[in-house]
Amino acid sequence: MNRESFAAAERLVSPAYVRQGYEARRSHEHLIRLLLEKGKCPEDGWDESTLELFLHELAIMDSNNFLGNCGVGEREGRVASKLVARRHYRFIHGIGRSGDISAVQPKAAGSSLLNKITNSLVLDIIKLAGVHTVTNCFVVPMATGMSLTLCFLTLRHKRPTAKYIIWPRIDQKSCFKSMITAGFEPVVIENILEGDELQTNLKAVEAKVQELGPDNILCVHSTTSCFAPRVPDRLEELAVICASYGIPHIVNNAYGLQSSKCMHLIQQAAQGGRIDAFVQSLDKNFMVPVGGAIIAGFNDSFIQEISKMYPGRASASPSLDVLITLLSLGSNGYKKLLKERKEIFSYLSIQLKKLSETYNERLLHTPHNPISLAITLKTLDEHHDKAATHLGSMLFTRQVSGARVVPPGSVQTVSGYTFRGFMSHTNNYPCAYLNAASAIGMKVQEVDLFIKRLDKCLKAIKKEQNKESNVSGVDKPDITEDVDVEHMALSNVLLETFQDLST
Amino acid sequence: MNRESFAAAERLVSPAYVRQGYEARRSHEHLIRLLLEKGKCPEDGWDESTLELFLHELAIMDSNNFLGNCGVGEREGRVASKLVARRHYRFIHGIGRSGDISAVQPKAAGSSLLNKITNSLVLDIIKLAGVHTVTNCFVVPMATGMSLTLCFLTLRHKRPTAKYIIWPRIDQKSCFKSMITAGFEPVVIENILEGDELQTNLKAVEAKVQELGPDNILCVHSTTSCFAPRVPDRLEELAVICASYGIPHIVNNAYGLQSSKCMHLIQQAAQGGRIDAFVQSLDKNFMVPVGGAIIAGFNDSFIQEISKMYPGRASASPSLDVLITLLSLGSNGYKKLLKERKEIFSYLSIQLKKLSETYNERLLHTPHNPISLAITLKTLDEHHDKAATHLGSMLFTRQVSGARVVPPGSVQTVSGYTFRGFMSHTNNYPCAYLNAASAIGMKVQEVDLFIKRLDKCLKAIKKEQNKESNVSGVDKPDITEDVDVEHMALSNVLLETFQDLST
Amino acid sequence: MNRESFAAAERLVSPAYVRQGYEARRSHEHLIRLLLEKGKCPEDGWDESTLELFLHELAIMDSNNFLGNCGVGEREGRVASKLVARRHYRFIHGIGRSGDISAVQPKAAGSSLLNKITNSLVLDIIKLAGVHTVTNCFVVPMATGMSLTLCFLTLRHKRPTAKYIIWPRIDQKSCFKSMITAGFEPVVIENILEGDELQTNLKAVEAKVQELGPDNILCVHSTTSCFAPRVPDRLEELAVICASYGIPHIVNNAYGLQSSKCMHLIQQAAQGGRIDAFVQSLDKNFMVPVGGAIIAGFNDSFIQEISKMYPGRASASPSLDVLITLLSLGSNGYKKLLKERKEIFSYLSIQLKKLSETYNERLLHTPHNPISLAITLKTLDEHHDKAATHLGSMLFTRQVSGARVVPPGSVQTVSGYTFRGFMSHTNNYPCAYLNAASAIGMKVQEVDLFIKRLDKCLKAIKKEQNKESNVSGVDKPDITEDVDVEHMALSNVLLETFQDLST
Amino acid sequence: MNRESFAAAERLVSPAYVRQGYEARRSHEHLIRLLLEKGKCPEDGWDESTLELFLHELAIMDSNNFLGNCGVGEREGRVASKLVARRHYRFIHGIGRSGDISAVQPKAAGSSLLNKITNSLVLDIIKLAGVHTVTNCFVVPMATGMSLTLCFLTLRHKRPTAKYIIWPRIDQKSCFKSMITAGFEPVVIENILEGDELQTNLKAVEAKVQELGPDNILCVHSTTSCFAPRVPDRLEELAVICASYGIPHIVNNAYGLQSSKCMHLIQQAAQGGRIDAFVQSLDKNFMVPVGGAIIAGFNDSFIQEISKMYPGRASASPSLDVLITLLSLGSNGYKKLLKERKEIFSYLSIQLKKLSETYNERLLHTPHNPISLAITLKTLDEHHDKAATHLGSMLFTRQVSGARVVPPGSVQTVSGYTFRGFMSHTNNYPCAYLNAASAIGMKVQEVDLFIKRLDKCLKAIKKEQNKESNVSGVDKPDITEDVDVEHMALSNVLLETFQDLST
Repeated sequence: MNRESFAAAERLVSPAYVRQGYEARRSHEHLIRLLLEKGKCPEDGWDESTLELFLHELAIMDSNNFLGNCGVGEREGRVASKLVARRHYRFIHGIGRSGDISAVQPKAAGSSLLNKITNSLVLDIIKLAGVHTVTNCFVVPMATGMSLTLCFLTLRHKRPTAKYIIWPRIDQKSCFKSMITAGFEPVVIENILEGDELQTNLKAVEAKVQELGPDNILCVHSTTSCFAPRVPDRLEELAVICASYGIPHIVNNAYGLQSSKCMHLIQQAAQGGRIDAFVQSLDKNFMVPVGGAIIAGFNDSFIQEISKMYPGRASASPSLDVLITLLSLGSNGYKKLLKERKEIFSYLSIQLKKLSETYNERLLHTPHNPISLAITLKTLDEHHDKAATHLGSMLFTRQVSGARVVPPGSVQTVSGYTFRGFMSHTNNYPCAYLNAASAIGMKVQEVDLFIKRLDKCLKAIKKEQNKESNVSGVDKPDITEDVDVEHMALSNVLLETFQDLST
Repeated sequence: MNRESFAAAERLVSPAYVRQGYEARRSHEHLIRLLLEKGKCPEDGWDESTLELFLHELAIMDSNNFLGNCGVGEREGRVASKLVARRHYRFIHGIGRSGDISAVQPKAAGSSLLNKITNSLVLDIIKLAGVHTVTNCFVVPMATGMSLTLCFLTLRHKRPTAKYIIWPRIDQKSCFKSMITAGFEPVVIENILEGDELQTNLKAVEAKVQELGPDNILCVHSTTSCFAPRVPDRLEELAVICASYGIPHIVNNAYGLQSSKCMHLIQQAAQGGRIDAFVQSLDKNFMVPVGGAIIAGFNDSFIQEISKMYPGRASASPSLDVLITLLSLGSNGYKKLLKERKEIFSYLSIQLKKLSETYNERLLHTPHNPISLAITLKTLDEHHDKAATHLGSMLFTRQVSGARVVPPGSVQTVSGYTFRGFMSHTNNYPCAYLNAASAIGMKVQEVDLFIKRLDKCLKAIKKEQNKESNVSGVDKPDITEDVDVEHMALSNVLLETFQDLST
Repeated sequence: MNRESFAAAERLVSPAYVRQGYEARRSHEHLIRLLLEKGKCPEDGWDESTLELFLHELAIMDSNNFLGNCGVGEREGRVASKLVARRHYRFIHGIGRSGDISAVQPKAAGSSLLNKITNSLVLDIIKLAGVHTVTNCFVVPMATGMSLTLCFLTLRHKRPTAKYIIWPRIDQKSCFKSMITAGFEPVVIENILEGDELQTNLKAVEAKVQELGPDNILCVHSTTSCFAPRVPDRLEELAVICASYGIPHIVNNAYGLQSSKCMHLIQQAAQGGRIDAFVQSLDKNFMVPVGGAIIAGFNDSFIQEISKMYPGRASASPSLDVLITLLSLGSNGYKKLLKERKEIFSYLSIQLKKLSETYNERLLHTPHNPISLAITLKTLDEHHDKAATHLGSMLFTRQVSGARVVPPGSVQTVSGYTFRGFMSHTNNYPCAYLNAASAIGMKVQEVDLFIKRLDKCLKAIKKEQNKESNVSGVDKPDITEDVDVEHMALSNVLLETFQDLST
Repeated sequence: MNRESFAAAERLVSPAYVRQGYEARRSHEHLIRLLLEKGKCPEDGWDESTLELFLHELAIMDSNNFLGNCGVGEREGRVASKLVARRHYRFIHGIGRSGDISAVQPKAAGSSLLNKITNSLVLDIIKLAGVHTVTNCFVVPMATGMSLTLCFLTLRHKRPTAKYIIWPRIDQKSCFKSMITAGFEPVVIENILEGDELQTNLKAVEAKVQELGPDNILCVHSTTSCFAPRVPDRLEELAVICASYGIPHIVNNAYGLQSSKCMHLIQQAAQGGRIDAFVQSLDKNFMVPVGGAIIAGFNDSFIQEISKMYPGRASASPSLDVLITLLSLGSNGYKKLLKERKEIFSYLSIQLKKLSETYNERLLHTPHNPISLAITLKTLDEHHDKAATHLGSMLFTRQVSGARVVPPGSVQTVSGYTFRGFMSHTNNYPCAYLNAASAIGMKVQEVDLFIKRLDKCLKAIKKEQNKESNVSGVDKPDITEDVDVEHMALSNVLLETFQDLST
């Protein structure tokens, strides 16, 4: 509503009330102006009203929403389904242009602004989370693995003769595949065992660099966030090696943005050595749907080169999600989430310690891993080698998701490379174990529920083992016996389901 | 976004594009301004983008959406559920004040505007639909019956000694109850049969007025839209009687706004005689959810008196629905709907005539009824007196809704009054019949489907009657035999359902 | 999805995962079943997912959502605007039938269920809130005033000769108008001053009953929730009088459902005497939009009679809002809100006491009023008789809503009745005062903000008075001087606005 | 609602009505079952009600929506913002797993089903659109360019020594960059001029293959849809060359799916020769937001290899959009859109021909291009070399989007490669021209509006040229003089805007 509209409104209802309303509107506008001028995440989250007003204002700046537009091109932002238009707040043109995912689109000033502002907010949050000297970043609508691939493809043009990527082992498929997909040969550096922890073998890295020759090495590809008992790579030392040999350094910081320790490692490494880019997942750090990542770095022009490597336009959907999320939370809301995560991590570790000791197991001592924990499953395996796996499937059917049982000795081949002891980050970890993590957004109740359900499962397994009975591969008997109270109603339902479905 | 925001935006993306976006925004604002200044329904419907922007702008003028509001009253527009807030576009304060449903609320400039604009648009549409000299109207969040009650209650204060309401009979419960609820005694004037049509008995009306004495009569309560073979009351003559005896005249125009004939009747009657108010349903004329009505009239101050009789605030929901609907359709869209309805009425009457003649029945000749039609069901009843009712339930289970079978001779008592021949508007209509109507929003396909299903049902009944078998009260046998093709899949499902549910 | 769909799904993705999904779905269904079977508010609130599934399931049971429906009636639940359909979750047919707002609609099984369940949940909540012996209630889509009118209109049919309603004075227009609209003559019983409190004059009530004769009295119309220093009527004694003289008793419990004291009064009065119906607002007690009320009582058949007085169908919108709200909150959530309201009431009274004493004023001692408080404004008026009013407008422009300044001696005429000392519930209250209330949903921050802003306003007025300067009617000068910090940014904006708009 | 819930519902409202509702529900379920069983696009589009029920049913099968879930992993589908959850219908887990974008996720049976079904529907549509022998396809949440890159990266593993990609020139940046980003050297084959058309130089392609040696060539990268006067590549002949030399063949079919000619070319080429994969944009062919593509082919295992190259999970958002769109449209709806596009193409070409001849220009004769058209701009350039560019910007400010003015002789460097005559697909096209296209979803009114605005712009330029005046670089003067009527209101606004913003 413009000035004339307000004047007309004053003739319909009392001027004093309309002015009060006009003033109220300007307080929303005031927040929007601050955002556009400063490009920083507001301290306090916006309410939905301001947020939707803002998105609406941006969307009507895109040509597909012009009232008098006529389109004669091959891509005009037309939408067949109103449901689809609505769920995207009528942003249809995506982000970027043929040449550059960060470029501004003439047909879509609103989407272009959305893109710029989101990148700006995310940069602000990265600083707030601990990497104060970051200079540039952008959201890319691809998951972490494909984003790492894009980084490697960009480096190829700078290092045309390089064939190898030095990679301290982490048993997660997509980061391994990111190198294969980019067409490079991963050089796996096995981790070393220090106490319970698996740490970077720095000597082996340096030896390999010398052996292969720096010019033949595209980059070092290190990792922060990972499952215990592996711990974040020794980034500072790796960064120094990279700097001294002139080798680029790409950090997989998948879910490390939520941890001040991981962010501190990156900050220190970049100060004292070399980091070219660090990549993190949107969904794992910002509680948005899967599908986006942030590529960030300390050298403005290198980050721009990466953004220019993305050929064509891209989905605005992940950017929109993170924009909505950050404006809703505000930086205070996000900091609160980080703080709670840390507290719940402590709580989870205490509970796991207690529970494991009841069963003559123990919490692995992995003080360098700020997110993931592991308890040993030694006693299970004494009786039966399938017991650990069985525990995993018992937890799954009890709606515990994300608990990860790692039996020793599994062998897996990924893209032609064979990994012994796959999932444990090393050929031969001393024992089976169970992982649990405290990730952003976790609730205390979830910890309690998990501990309770885990307790029941362990108890059930022990009981069966004591009977000297064979552990059956099928989980059925347990369901009716052992589930916790709140699960009872469901389990009857489940049984019935199986019967229903099998008739 | 204000001037400073746009300036900031220009620094983020190209100024030329931002200006293009700014211009685009002003074209939305332009439409909003025109609406507020003229108070008329726009010719072309608005797109959702403009509509939602407008609603958003209004909503942020309400105090419950002020960013810095603090409320210390007993009614502050707080909402517990975000789903609820969202579905009302954050309009929470309703409309009106203690004293008057049309009054402006200090706490809610936006809702007050919404109310004023809606009433203004609706007035515009009433004129467009044929009552050009209407002077005032308001939307009230009560259905037609309760709205009529409100009119009668208002008249009571002007005619304290009046006890009777003269009411040419129409067999519909809520308009009858509207008088009972208001505490008056309806004086039923039986209709007279002219050809097939049931028309107002003007002589009986005038005789009754003289018999009871004008001062003892609260008003004449006449009806336009009704089921054939009744036709709209002879409004012009009734209005002249009212004028000459000084008796108020309230018209129940329930779904008559959609018919140019009904509206023309009102216009003519008001010009040549007396109409104090005419009341119409929102849902039946504007295709919105049930729950609102429009009270309109030719005397500004009387309509205001009625609006001042509503004690307390009221739901804004019906007003919001009709506002959204009219802005989406535009006056052209609404006119198109009216035109289509008329065409489908012709089509339906042709199809019904054809079908009825196949079965030796006929379409009743009711040229004065512009919406509802009736075909005789004589031959059914020759064989069996339950056959007509059976036809009704067969149609119901075949998902034909709104078809209305009227057997002769049913007797019903409503609020202590006994009606012989109830549903047929007269004590003894010559035959049973079936009603079907062409109401706004009906589709040609619906007519075809209805004719097809009706044909099947009639065929099935005839077949059974020929077998001399008794018509069973249960519909089951027919379902598998006679249903039309598209109904087949469903009917199997239905059978299964019955079995499922009865076990 | 039915059995066959799940079987097909198992062929597309792993059966184990599909079964897990199937089980998850059944846990939603389990909650829905419990609700339908028990008709009680669930203890824990449902999440949006279950809620929307439930509403979706109900909606597809209405004929307007049948895939193969064909409608040939005059009211078929057609909707012109998808936005409108969506915001009503596709419930279009409203609630009730011509004869009865609680009746089931053949065309709309889903809407009918919605209506029944809502009434059932609301009854459960009324019991939980303290009126344990309530037997029936229904939600009506009209605000409290019009709902009271409906009660009076129903009583008319039982007491045809009665003309008067005995009404202990409360200065709120809509409850007064509710009697006028229904066509009765209110007999105002002035309150008596006991300490600071204004209480029911029981003797005057009984004297009036005797004077007018019980048969000429339609009912006693009493009030619970009200602005201090008036307190809830002495319901128990009034109920005894009603019982002994055989006079009906209707209680206006507008926002009393949120207060255990008001509910206790009703419970006690109904046990020891006579209450025919008690009426409460939906919005004020359940934090939903304005427009609905609950009519409840202890005699099943009388409540049914009232529901049968509503002529015609009615909006389902208020019922839908309260259903969504109660299912979201659960009874535990609602109880928590009640508890918090009570705590904030104590906090507010402490803060007001403290602040008032700073300015040589005092908190009125009104221990019987559980919701509203008042502080004196004596010192203001010593200097200038417009000062109190000025305070009101200062608070309004500072976005304090609901604070109510009551200057002594204002005279107002409502529907021909003249009230001296209007707003203060008595002809001549000893001093001016300011009201503030703790209503459901209030936040501690609002109390703090209110106290801060009130403090500033009082300070400003005192300052001006000390300057012996005249208090100007316009609020402008204060804005730039005295507003609190968080208001500063806005006030500049406001000033600019005034300039903008006045050019 | 399950059986017990329906039984409970029957006790609340009439069993007959509940059964009718139950039956209605099963008709929705019936559609869902057919979809899951057949995996084909339904002929008739679903209504929103069925669609949302289906999405809801899928979503509750994902673990993040389990009522009793407890998550202890690093990625649990938590969502911080309800707005975000809602707009994704609560699908948070994305699609695919670490190893494979088409893989099923244990935590997300619903999202996995969504992914499978979408791919299945899209395959059905590709067949319907003309490529009957396609065997496999998948939706990837990356635009066309990045999807081509993924194809090239996959081929690298099969042809480790290949360095070159043979590429018949098309002047569009992202398809060129797709090769650069993948790390290959594009070998540009200049087009040949046949009449007005630019066609593939087959001889040059074959000569280049022989010159470089087949083993050094990664693939031929051909194009179907393109701007006139270029026409689709001679796919059949290219496919034969590829087959005979054993070279892979990747087709960029960006917006060709909407054209039966382009699809026919692919079908024929695959039958008679070799095509390994063809890639098309989601947004350009299905009217959804930018950000997705479809990779399709004739060899099941090769398409699977590509899907396994995508490292990590991916956004489900583009899949969800296309699923909603196809289910809403049905195959009949989509076919109707294709038919309309073709008709509007004819209409556009007739209108352009007529208009161009008025100005002594002509429509280029490009019968092989089914989507894009071009008219010469010879006479403009006779007077002034900036006139063509000026025309472009005039159209832009008049809200004509997608019209593309191609002046001869522009030189551009992309990723180090220099293109003479850039935008015209050849070093030296005989004249300047203007492109316009008829893409899916275009409306007749848009053609009319475009022709009208183009006419005005050309008239204005001619007028200025006749005055021998210099064409000013600024567009301002024209705005107030020449804009069409409906643009008038806006242009005043625009002028004002410029003034506003520049103060």
